Amino acid sequence: MARGFRQKIRQKNTENSGFGSNASGRFINRDGLPNVKRKGVNVFNRLSWYHTMLNLSTFRFLSYLIIAYVLVNLLFALIYYVIGVEHLTGIDKSDPLNEFIDVFFFSSQTFTTVGYGRIAPVGFMASLVATFEAFLGLLTFAIATGLFYGRFSRPRAYLRFSDIAVVAPFQDSTALMFRLAPYKNNALTDADVILSTAIEVVEDGVAKNNFYRLDTHLSKINTLALNWTVVHKIDENSPFYGFSEEDFKNTNIEIIVQVRAFDEVFSNTVVQRSSYVSEEIVYGAKFTLMYYPDNSDLTTILDLDKINDYQKADLPVMAGDPE
Amino acid sequence: MARGFRQKIRQKNTENSGFGSNASGRFINRDGLPNVKRKGVNVFNRLSWYHTMLNLSTFRFLSYLIIAYVLVNLLFALIYYVIGVEHLTGIDKSDPLNEFIDVFFFSSQTFTTVGYGRIAPVGFMASLVATFEAFLGLLTFAIATGLFYGRFSRPRAYLRFSDIAVVAPFQDSTALMFRLAPYKNNALTDADVILSTAIEVVEDGVAKNNFYRLDTHLSKINTLALNWTVVHKIDENSPFYGFSEEDFKNTNIEIIVQVRAFDEVFSNTVVQRSSYVSEEIVYGAKFTLMYYPDNSDLTTILDLDKINDYQKADLPVMAGDPE
Amino acid sequence: MARGFRQKIRQKNTENSGFGSNASGRFINRDGLPNVKRKGVNVFNRLSWYHTMLNLSTFRFLSYLIIAYVLVNLLFALIYYVIGVEHLTGIDKSDPLNEFIDVFFFSSQTFTTVGYGRIAPVGFMASLVATFEAFLGLLTFAIATGLFYGRFSRPRAYLRFSDIAVVAPFQDSTALMFRLAPYKNNALTDADVILSTAIEVVEDGVAKNNFYRLDTHLSKINTLALNWTVVHKIDENSPFYGFSEEDFKNTNIEIIVQVRAFDEVFSNTVVQRSSYVSEEIVYGAKFTLMYYPDNSDLTTILDLDKINDYQKADLPVMAGDPE
Amino acid sequence: MARGFRQKIRQKNTENSGFGSNASGRFINRDGLPNVKRKGVNVFNRLSWYHTMLNLSTFRFLSYLIIAYVLVNLLFALIYYVIGVEHLTGIDKSDPLNEFIDVFFFSSQTFTTVGYGRIAPVGFMASLVATFEAFLGLLTFAIATGLFYGRFSRPRAYLRFSDIAVVAPFQDSTALMFRLAPYKNNALTDADVILSTAIEVVEDGVAKNNFYRLDTHLSKINTLALNWTVVHKIDENSPFYGFSEEDFKNTNIEIIVQVRAFDEVFSNTVVQRSSYVSEEIVYGAKFTLMYYPDNSDLTTILDLDKINDYQKADLPVMAGDPE
Repeated sequence: MARGFRQKIRQKNTENSGFGSNASGRFINRDGLPNVKRKGVNVFNRLSWYHTMLNLSTFRFLSYLIIAYVLVNLLFALIYYVIGVEHLTGIDKSDPLNEFIDVFFFSSQTFTTVGYGRIAPVGFMASLVATFEAFLGLLTFAIATGLFYGRFSRPRAYLRFSDIAVVAPFQDSTALMFRLAPYKNNALTDADVILSTAIEVVEDGVAKNNFYRLDTHLSKINTLALNWTVVHKIDENSPFYGFSEEDFKNTNIEIIVQVRAFDEVFSNTVVQRSSYVSEEIVYGAKFTLMYYPDNSDLTTILDLDKINDYQKADLPVMAGDPE
Repeated sequence: MARGFRQKIRQKNTENSGFGSNASGRFINRDGLPNVKRKGVNVFNRLSWYHTMLNLSTFRFLSYLIIAYVLVNLLFALIYYVIGVEHLTGIDKSDPLNEFIDVFFFSSQTFTTVGYGRIAPVGFMASLVATFEAFLGLLTFAIATGLFYGRFSRPRAYLRFSDIAVVAPFQDSTALMFRLAPYKNNALTDADVILSTAIEVVEDGVAKNNFYRLDTHLSKINTLALNWTVVHKIDENSPFYGFSEEDFKNTNIEIIVQVRAFDEVFSNTVVQRSSYVSEEIVYGAKFTLMYYPDNSDLTTILDLDKINDYQKADLPVMAGDPE
Repeated sequence: MARGFRQKIRQKNTENSGFGSNASGRFINRDGLPNVKRKGVNVFNRLSWYHTMLNLSTFRFLSYLIIAYVLVNLLFALIYYVIGVEHLTGIDKSDPLNEFIDVFFFSSQTFTTVGYGRIAPVGFMASLVATFEAFLGLLTFAIATGLFYGRFSRPRAYLRFSDIAVVAPFQDSTALMFRLAPYKNNALTDADVILSTAIEVVEDGVAKNNFYRLDTHLSKINTLALNWTVVHKIDENSPFYGFSEEDFKNTNIEIIVQVRAFDEVFSNTVVQRSSYVSEEIVYGAKFTLMYYPDNSDLTTILDLDKINDYQKADLPVMAGDPE
Repeated sequence: MARGFRQKIRQKNTENSGFGSNASGRFINRDGLPNVKRKGVNVFNRLSWYHTMLNLSTFRFLSYLIIAYVLVNLLFALIYYVIGVEHLTGIDKSDPLNEFIDVFFFSSQTFTTVGYGRIAPVGFMASLVATFEAFLGLLTFAIATGLFYGRFSRPRAYLRFSDIAVVAPFQDSTALMFRLAPYKNNALTDADVILSTAIEVVEDGVAKNNFYRLDTHLSKINTLALNWTVVHKIDENSPFYGFSEEDFKNTNIEIIVQVRAFDEVFSNTVVQRSSYVSEEIVYGAKFTLMYYPDNSDLTTILDLDKINDYQKADLPVMAGDPE
């Protein structure tokens, strides 16, 4: 394994990544979240149920709502049934199952406050429980309102990253590049990118992660309307200076990306992260254009399906190359 | 076509506009959104329905709500009708149309949870569907609540830009100016402006956009209460240095404006963009005052209808003028 | 009138206040809003109804809601009455007034979706209008929900400013001081203050406002828990250098204050402005302490009623004093 | 009592803490709020009821809602009872208690808009009050919706601080250290810490607090995924330079901590504060690791129960040590 490059790395920003130098596995998952599990405390203190509800898929979120709705009504139906169906008017008393079905529907008509009145409470206990259930129903829908709003108003960047990064020719030298593009009808401005990398080195037989900040050729962009190709020039200040294709393959590398931008609809700063590991870096390639004028020549088309398109490219021989 | 100026342009900030140097048409539409179309992925992934709902006009937004309400009730009416009107009490069974009308109104009374009870479910299936419909109704109004709030609490700058920019005399030289004013009863502070320009140049017979940052005479303002005339002095650092009236006319120029300010009611930063193309630049003109003391001399009147008012003005002969 | 000071003023930051040098009256009203009226466009475009609703007093806001509720019900009552009371069950048809009263209550029971069903629609037209009214009712309460939330979640600094500023002795020289304190149970951190002043000068017989930024002795504070005395030292860099008591009295001065802080409950930056004009500046005075340890000596008491308390104080004779 | 250190302290940032130099007791309580009481004005002006509702525990918040619900219904029940039960249909008139119970339940069915209609208003006054109660009910639930959303969408850092700070060996010298970790499933990035200290000194027999900014070895961190050990190196720039174990014990010290980070779910900056007083500083100790690879070696486990674990550690003899 080629480790000759190690002496060349000029350390910068070591340690402030927030990840331990002896942490395991990928640092940032492809969805942008850190690859860390927590234990201790207890699970209820460890979970923010609001964060959990906001991160659920729409399908699961709606499913949970419906299941909760059915369970609450079953519970209240049981309570009304125990209190006695004689405390309710309009119940079909032909057999116990029909009685239970009717109290279940009475419960749902109370919980949703639809209150047709075909079935209505007359006794004290049934009325009291119904009073409480209607109140609970409204509070529940108050909470649901907040969750729906929280879910769809949650500011998100809606950026699509290329699946791969490339090492491409750049200004008589080489550069590590990847690209990203906004894929929704949002309007992002004042975007900037922070790039860092973790490189695993073996010292005295022990694997250890070193962290480096990576300079970017242009780290800010005014309007994120087309795609943005982020360029890290591999010069003397880069920890990858002198890396051969084999070095990229044989070393555990992780490029950690954080993009910030201002969304004009949310009027809020949005952040999205991604990462590239060694297997996701293509050596000697360059991206091909993913936008072009439309036929009228009055607007520009951005083709999101082309975000991963690249072609082979010869790299210049670098002076500092140790191979 | 006068292209002599090209050699004089001192490049600054090239490329970080986020627009391609070979993109087509105007970059920023007059409504402030980038002139880019996206394709690829699929249309559902490409649209943020929340952004879409927030950007609809009030009329269209309300129309969509009403249409959705009618469609949902027609759908549920059909379901109840298929289940059978005998599962509902109080239905007018004089003829099928009256039956359908009554189940339609039963549906709306359930969906809105008004639940008069004149028509009420008795059978299992009708009760079950009604249970679900009332639940769906409440969730729908929960979502509508969020959309209404999202729409009217969306921070916006409410700035009106002058329709034209002028090239006016300024401090023994000339300057490009335009002006803007807040037109609503909001209170903006700490405003700043970022000005850049795209200039189309022809190199080797190929049209290409170059991007330049434009300096502004005062790029920050404490309180945006009156109008703000933004001034870009055309000196040696300006890409327009030496431009004649004909240069402005014959060159494809786009001035891209981004204003940021802090809104004290939203307690949020708001951003508004606009742009001026060659046809919207008036050479040799200056804006006339658009505010004046009121009769009592105790307050100042800002007349928004005068924002485009200008008068002809002679420009000084500039040393660097190539004509 | 003493105008000898004018030559001494070292101009800084002229023009970026956002107010015109020939604007009239006070710039910032004591409530922090700019003293500007707008005309032109039309009144609906010029008003943000959301900003208006958020700025209403609680009493007026609730009154408007109740009035709107009554008016809407009167309107729908009229519609039902015109359609005919025979399309509703349960109406007291003893006389036209009773009929109208009953349709009014039917309307309110529909609008709020309470829907007792004692009065219920049977005819097509009445049912259709009720369908629409229940829908409108829910949308209205959706909007009301948003307005309530917008009103009480609106980030505000809740700062109380002293009614007066003082010119006090400070470090062998003098300083202009005023103080402010948070008066609610909010927690403000990272506060900073921006101080500027408008001074009216007469040039060639024409009154004109000059604007200056004022340095503050400490412009940032970590935790805004006690009162904060903002200090502008009157040294050679101050436009007030050499001002006598008469100069402060006879010159039209306005001190414009803007305080920003981070509120930990809203997790938002909040801004509050105020201003002091000549009549609100007390020459030769210093503020007295407004906090003290409580009896247990374990906490500190901040007495908000003492915010304006000051005592007379002799000022040192300044070298640069022109009197 | 060892006070020899006092002469060595190099003052920085004195006074901008926002706390008075003669304030009493701890400055920041362990929950992060300042230890200050306010008086004056009146209690209603001094309380932000929204801040109060947001800071209540969930249990108390729900209890207050239920109590308010019962009280409102009792009040309306009383009103209906005074108006007369003959204005309501369906009342059980067997005895006055049953009458009151029935009007109470009618009130709750109106307030929640469930409106079964078994009991319904017929008279003018009862109808009018019910019209108003249903309206009030909906507004109340509108407010409750806002409060629920305000409570659970309130951005919070969810950081757990170690209960103790340690003085540990660090780079051939010593450092004051404490650590913190995110304990919920939130994702924090771009964290920074501001550290300051209050040291009580006795001058001329009067106790007085001096405030100092403390430098931190790394004051920013990219991703707050694992624990973060904040390190203040005790070198010549530290006010603790030369402090012995006894100095730490015998002096009233308070370390004030403020952590800011960006939460990606809320897309908002969150702030959390804490403080350490003399009794909470352990001299000659170092923290033990609180994270380790999981068995699969593919992820990292952060054990929150170990946040306070430390072991004894010998400190180097410092040159400037006065003991």
